[in-house]
Amino acid sequence: MPHAHSGVHRSAHIQKKRELRRDEILHAALNAFRERGYHATTLDDIALRLGMRKTALYHYFPDKEAILYECHRASLGELDRILRGTSRLKSVAERLRAVVREHVRIMIETLQGSPLAFEVTTLSPARQNEIISARDRYERRLRRMIEHGIKDGSFRAVDPKLATFAILGAINWIARWYRPEGKSQAPEVGAEFADHLVGGLERT
Amino acid sequence: MPHAHSGVHRSAHIQKKRELRRDEILHAALNAFRERGYHATTLDDIALRLGMRKTALYHYFPDKEAILYECHRASLGELDRILRGTSRLKSVAERLRAVVREHVRIMIETLQGSPLAFEVTTLSPARQNEIISARDRYERRLRRMIEHGIKDGSFRAVDPKLATFAILGAINWIARWYRPEGKSQAPEVGAEFADHLVGGLERT
Repeated sequence: MPHAHSGVHRSAHIQKKRELRRDEILHAALNAFRERGYHATTLDDIALRLGMRKTALYHYFPDKEAILYECHRASLGELDRILRGTSRLKSVAERLRAVVREHVRIMIETLQGSPLAFEVTTLSPARQNEIISARDRYERRLRRMIEHGIKDGSFRAVDPKLATFAILGAINWIARWYRPEGKSQAPEVGAEFADHLVGGLERT
Repeated sequence: MPHAHSGVHRSAHIQKKRELRRDEILHAALNAFRERGYHATTLDDIALRLGMRKTALYHYFPDKEAILYECHRASLGELDRILRGTSRLKSVAERLRAVVREHVRIMIETLQGSPLAFEVTTLSPARQNEIISARDRYERRLRRMIEHGIKDGSFRAVDPKLATFAILGAINWIARWYRPEGKSQAPEVGAEFADHLVGGLERT
């Protein structure tokens, strides 16, 4: 029994190590995508950043497209959790502010300001469909949040679709100007964007 | 003298026709860029849309890059005129609203919702520098407009750089969702974006 127990421990430990390594690879890949662009980045570039052999990288991801797919999946999963997490907040404006702040954090911290939102067409058709559906779902939920705010009188009678596009555009555009060495980091950008983009919808 | 006079008329007429043709080419090119992407578009595609021979196209533009450059130059020139035009408006908020509305109009009508802002790196280094400088100049002027609004008390104490990025992001992102056959056209998008993006800066 103690033997089996330590076996479980060991495999949990190995699993944990594997996940950490996986995250490091995604992190390095996203930095490479930001700096050189997705198309110019090779698996060698990513391996080099990690001081890893390319053959070792293959244990985690078969190719660059699998890495891109995983980055999309991970960030859309995070967005989904965030949306569900905000349901405990009372007002729509508070909920939308939290979503904007967290989405900005994902753009800057999880995605390292990498222009992922600009790169969907490079995925295989099946993966492209999956990512686009998840993104559409997220968009629709933002739109419904705004519709809700209009109904309960917190927001002006805006066009919910256009308001959603304005918010997502401002956030996605971060990939065009963000620099890790710059002074604007996630908490500041998130707070400013939340006030600007949600404040602009509120009734005054 | 009457002879010379009619000569002037004729050359003015030819000049005018040439300009119209040039505009048609830019228009067709922008539509092709939106539909197929810049890289996938060929000069043949553009000529085909105009029912023109490719050799006739060469009288106007030597290559695709020259067309892209001209689209950038024309839209940045328009933005410049707009900024100067708004100086007659009294309040900063009114001026910024007019700039947002007009920039949206350029994105949708002049640029046909083409993702031009996403394509600078394909230009030659000299042209790239010119376009990036003009774009930076425009950005700086928007930023100063916001700084001015903070000083005179019309705007909250936002970070002018981040507020400018949010506005430009929302506008540039139009290229990602705009469809000429859709119901959201320039006047509506411009009015909604102006209220949303400028309203979000105003003191309440």
